[in-house]
Amino acid sequence: MDPAQEELFIVRQDSPLNAEPPTSALAEFPITPEQLVYHRNHSDVPAHDGTLVATTFTIDDLERRFPKARVEAVLQCAGLRRAEMGATGREVKGVPWGAGVVANCYWGGVRLRDVLLEVFPGLEREANGANRTDEHAHVCFTARGAKCEDDAYYGASIPLSKALDPEGDVLVAWEMNDDDIPPVHGGPLRLVVPGYLGARWVKWLDGIYLSNRESPNYYQARDYKVLPEEVEDKKQAAPWWDKVPSMTSMPLNSVIASVTKVEDDGIPAGHLRLRVKGYALPALGVPVDEVQISGLDVDAHRVWEDARITYQGGRWAWTLWEGEVVARARKGKIIVRSRALSRTGEAQPESGKWNLRGVAWNGWSVGEYEVDA
Amino acid sequence: MDPAQEELFIVRQDSPLNAEPPTSALAEFPITPEQLVYHRNHSDVPAHDGTLVATTFTIDDLERRFPKARVEAVLQCAGLRRAEMGATGREVKGVPWGAGVVANCYWGGVRLRDVLLEVFPGLEREANGANRTDEHAHVCFTARGAKCEDDAYYGASIPLSKALDPEGDVLVAWEMNDDDIPPVHGGPLRLVVPGYLGARWVKWLDGIYLSNRESPNYYQARDYKVLPEEVEDKKQAAPWWDKVPSMTSMPLNSVIASVTKVEDDGIPAGHLRLRVKGYALPALGVPVDEVQISGLDVDAHRVWEDARITYQGGRWAWTLWEGEVVARARKGKIIVRSRALSRTGEAQPESGKWNLRGVAWNGWSVGEYEVDA
Repeated sequence: MDPAQEELFIVRQDSPLNAEPPTSALAEFPITPEQLVYHRNHSDVPAHDGTLVATTFTIDDLERRFPKARVEAVLQCAGLRRAEMGATGREVKGVPWGAGVVANCYWGGVRLRDVLLEVFPGLEREANGANRTDEHAHVCFTARGAKCEDDAYYGASIPLSKALDPEGDVLVAWEMNDDDIPPVHGGPLRLVVPGYLGARWVKWLDGIYLSNRESPNYYQARDYKVLPEEVEDKKQAAPWWDKVPSMTSMPLNSVIASVTKVEDDGIPAGHLRLRVKGYALPALGVPVDEVQISGLDVDAHRVWEDARITYQGGRWAWTLWEGEVVARARKGKIIVRSRALSRTGEAQPESGKWNLRGVAWNGWSVGEYEVDA
Repeated sequence: MDPAQEELFIVRQDSPLNAEPPTSALAEFPITPEQLVYHRNHSDVPAHDGTLVATTFTIDDLERRFPKARVEAVLQCAGLRRAEMGATGREVKGVPWGAGVVANCYWGGVRLRDVLLEVFPGLEREANGANRTDEHAHVCFTARGAKCEDDAYYGASIPLSKALDPEGDVLVAWEMNDDDIPPVHGGPLRLVVPGYLGARWVKWLDGIYLSNRESPNYYQARDYKVLPEEVEDKKQAAPWWDKVPSMTSMPLNSVIASVTKVEDDGIPAGHLRLRVKGYALPALGVPVDEVQISGLDVDAHRVWEDARITYQGGRWAWTLWEGEVVARARKGKIIVRSRALSRTGEAQPESGKWNLRGVAWNGWSVGEYEVDA
C-alpha cells in the first residue's frame, strides 16, 4: 500500500498484508475505487509472468487418452567426445565428456503429436500443411521443478515441424526399457526427441506450450550451439548467441569402444591381431549403413576395412559393430580408427569442427592398443 | 547412483551429478541397461507430481482468441463481519474482519467457459448436458507463485457447472475498473467468480485444470467451510473438514456503513434525525430487492422502514441504500439496524450462524450513533 492508503486502511496483518478500508468510506462509491479495495492475502505478492496454463494431464490421463507408443532411440549428450575436441590443442568450455554419454534404450509413452493435436484446436490444419503459419513455430518445454545452474529452471524447445512429424517419433515418455523411467533419468515424465541432442529430451517434463519463438531458457538460447570456429572465449561468444541456431540433430558418428588382442597363430611374426568394437550413431534418422576401421596393408599404409554390423535397432537407434585388424607389434601404442557411412552416402569426417562449447564432435574415432614389449 | 554404479562410472561432477560409464562396457549391450545410462544434469533431481501441463495462454492469446467480457461484481471475503460474530461471546478463528472486506468493481477479461470449451474437447457435450459425467466435476485453479502460509502455493476450485454456466459470468480477468488489475489485487491475471467468496477468485492465477475432485489445496479442502456450531476448536474441527462442503455462494447481507445526524427543526423536541447509509449483498445472483432499517414508533418500539436504493449494479453487484430514522436523543448509544430482502422473498436473518472459522456472518447489521449530552 502507498502511505496515503495505509493511513486510511485498518491493517489487520502486515505480512502477508491483510487490511480493510473503513466501511463508511466504502459505501460512498457505487464502484469501489482501487484505493479502497480490501487486501486479503495468504501470501506475499508473487512474480507472475502473465501466462495462464490451461490443462494438465496425469500419466493416467495420457495413457487413457492417447495410443501407446514405443520407440527405440539413442540418447546422446551434445558434448559427447568433448574431451577429444579439447585434446586437439584448443580448449573447450564444458564437462570433459568421453564417449560414454550415450544410451540406446526403448522409450514408452505417447506421441507428442497426438497430445498437441488434441490440445490445440487448429493445429491439425497446420499439421496438414494447409495453413501453416510461423505464429506457433516452436513447441516449448519446461521442467519448472528443476532449479538449474544457469537459469531458474530447465527449458528447451523444438521446431513444431519436428513435433508434429508423424515420422518424428517425439514422445512424452514415462517408460525406459519397459519400466518406469527412474527419477535420475527424468522420470516420471521426460521428453524423447529421437535424433536430437539429449538437451532437448527434457527430463522431469512438467510443461508444454506453443510459441512463435524458441524457448527463452538459458539451455535453449545460450548454450548448445555450434559457435563459429573463431570464437575463442565467453566474451567473444556474447554477440553470437542470438545469431547461431540452436542445435537440433546430432551428427553421423562412430566410436571405438574397445581394442583387444586376439590370439591368432596364423599371422606373420612381429604382428598381432586386434579386435575392435564400437558403436555408431545415425544422423537425421538416416541409419548407419557401414562402419570401417583402419588396418594396415603390407606396406604399413592405412587401409579401411569393413566392420561387421552386429546390431542395428532402427533409424533412431545406434549401430553396434566389430572388426579385426592386423598390426605391427612394436612397443607402444597401436592406433586404430573408425568411421561411419550413412545409407545416403554421407561419411563421418576425419576431423570434427572445433567450437568453444565442444559440441557435436564427430571426427574419426581413435582407439589404442598398448604393446608392452 | 548406488555404490555399485558409482564404482563403474566416471564422475565428472558430483552435484549436479554428471557421470558417464566406460565406453567399453556400454558397447557390450545393444539396449543400454539402466545401470549404464549416463547422467547429464544442470540441476538436482526435482520433485515431480507426475502431471504435465499442456498449454499456456498469454493475456494477448486470451484477448485474441476469446470475446472480451466485462462484469460488475462484488468481491467479498468469506470472513466479512467476522468481528461481529466473535462479539457474540464465542471466539472465532481468523483475522477479525469488519465490514470493509468488500469491493464492487468492474472486471474485464474473458469467460472461463469459453476458455474451457476451447481447451477441453468433449466438454461442450457435457456443457450441453447431453452426457454429463462426474468425471470432471471441478475446475481447479492454481497460483503456483504464491507461497502461502498453510500450503506450498494457493489453489482453489469451483464446480464445473458454475464454470460452464453461460449465466455464471466466471472470468479469467486482467482488468479491474477498466484498468490493468494491479499486482496487489491479483494482477496480471485473477479469477472472477461472481457470487462466490473471494477465496475462489484466485489471484495471480497461473493454472487451470479439470479434476474429478475439488482442489486438494489447503484453502479449498481445509479452510473456508461453515463447520457445525458444536465445533469449538481446531482439534474438534479435524474430523469435519472432509465432511463439510467447501463454501461457494455468499449469503444475502446488508451492512450499515455510517450513521450521521441530520439537522431538522421539524422533529419533536428530545428527538433527532439520523441518516443511515450502507450496502447490501445479493445471494446466488438474486439481486437485493429491498433494504429496511429500524426506526422507532411513537411508543419507542422498533419498526422497519424502507431505505431508498441509491445504487443497484446488477445481479452480481452490491446495492447501496440510505434512509433516515427518528430516535430519542438520550445520552449514550443510539442503535439502528438494517436487513435486506431479496427479489425472491428471502430475508436476511436476525442473527448469523456462529461457526469456528467465522465465515458467512449475515445477521442484521447494527449501527450506532453516540449522543454526547
